[in-house]
Amino acid sequence: MSKQQIIGQEIERLIKLLGKLPGLGPRSARRAVLHLLKNREGLLEPLIHAIEDVAHQVMVCSKCGNIDTVSPCFICTDPTREEKALVIVKDVGDLWALERAQAVKGRYHVLGGLLSPLDGIGPDKLSFGLLQKRFTEHNFVEVILALDATVEGQATAHYITELLKPHNLQITRLAYGMPIGGELDYMDEGTLLAALKQRTHFET
Amino acid sequence: MSKQQIIGQEIERLIKLLGKLPGLGPRSARRAVLHLLKNREGLLEPLIHAIEDVAHQVMVCSKCGNIDTVSPCFICTDPTREEKALVIVKDVGDLWALERAQAVKGRYHVLGGLLSPLDGIGPDKLSFGLLQKRFTEHNFVEVILALDATVEGQATAHYITELLKPHNLQITRLAYGMPIGGELDYMDEGTLLAALKQRTHFET
Repeated sequence: MSKQQIIGQEIERLIKLLGKLPGLGPRSARRAVLHLLKNREGLLEPLIHAIEDVAHQVMVCSKCGNIDTVSPCFICTDPTREEKALVIVKDVGDLWALERAQAVKGRYHVLGGLLSPLDGIGPDKLSFGLLQKRFTEHNFVEVILALDATVEGQATAHYITELLKPHNLQITRLAYGMPIGGELDYMDEGTLLAALKQRTHFET
Repeated sequence: MSKQQIIGQEIERLIKLLGKLPGLGPRSARRAVLHLLKNREGLLEPLIHAIEDVAHQVMVCSKCGNIDTVSPCFICTDPTREEKALVIVKDVGDLWALERAQAVKGRYHVLGGLLSPLDGIGPDKLSFGLLQKRFTEHNFVEVILALDATVEGQATAHYITELLKPHNLQITRLAYGMPIGGELDYMDEGTLLAALKQRTHFET
């Protein structure tokens, strides 16, 4: 007897699709589907509407690559934001993280990834064309590279620095060091080296 | 500035609903939504169809409590199954687990939970009425209690045994002991006691 007959192909298909989400394996996808079926009115039906709304109303901002229900997005048209600073991020998740931290109040540019020759991600895969176009239209003064502290992040930062050289900008990157709350003996060597190299005066 | 403005209420709502699934917290729900938006055609649209199909085509079997696209379900109408044995399980997830293991080829009865006075789950919350009805309609000879090896599982097993006393059945439960592949020094005392108590002759 095949497994398909027991579980039913509709359920099997939903388990398979949910299992493709990051954080959900086949096992937890199965539990999720059962949970949905147990909570039809409270969860399954609202989820259908929510997912349809997102699918049909959410779009990519033509200016910065953020996602929103309008394009240009809320951030691109917000008049209260710093016009001179452009924060370059890998993806929308990173943009959300910075916004949650209320760390910076400039405009954003979403690259759509980081340069990674080993994964076949060259400059043509990322939104560098759109980025250059923005510099012909706006007078940004500072560019903040808010990228991962990884080899790919570094490579992308270098590439962008070269790309933007003609515009004579102040280009900064996020500091490297100990994460707040981090315990020293859990830090890797790279972090400790960076934290030591960039040590600052202790102020009380 | 509110978080709602940044992320958009449609996306926020989907994140909230996905975050209610077992195994997905708010953080991973956010990543899941971004993943969906990045894979519209390959994942988001198919997921909408899959979830709608499940919502509209999947029903609870009126006989055993299994879920299927038909009622009575595939298992209840399968002529190749043992007619004399009834396997009683907590929920559909447990039924699926037994079917995956191809452990038994009888009919099932899904209780919908286990007795748990502390959580307010009394006999009226579980499908004991339906269970008794089945014994007036079918001539089961054996009842296999395939329930969790927990206090609630035990209590439920006792309750069912009392309930079915008039029918003069052979009632068995799953064996307790070391799980296959389990290492002895990771076992709790209860498991070791059960495994010792029910030790069997070693055959080579």
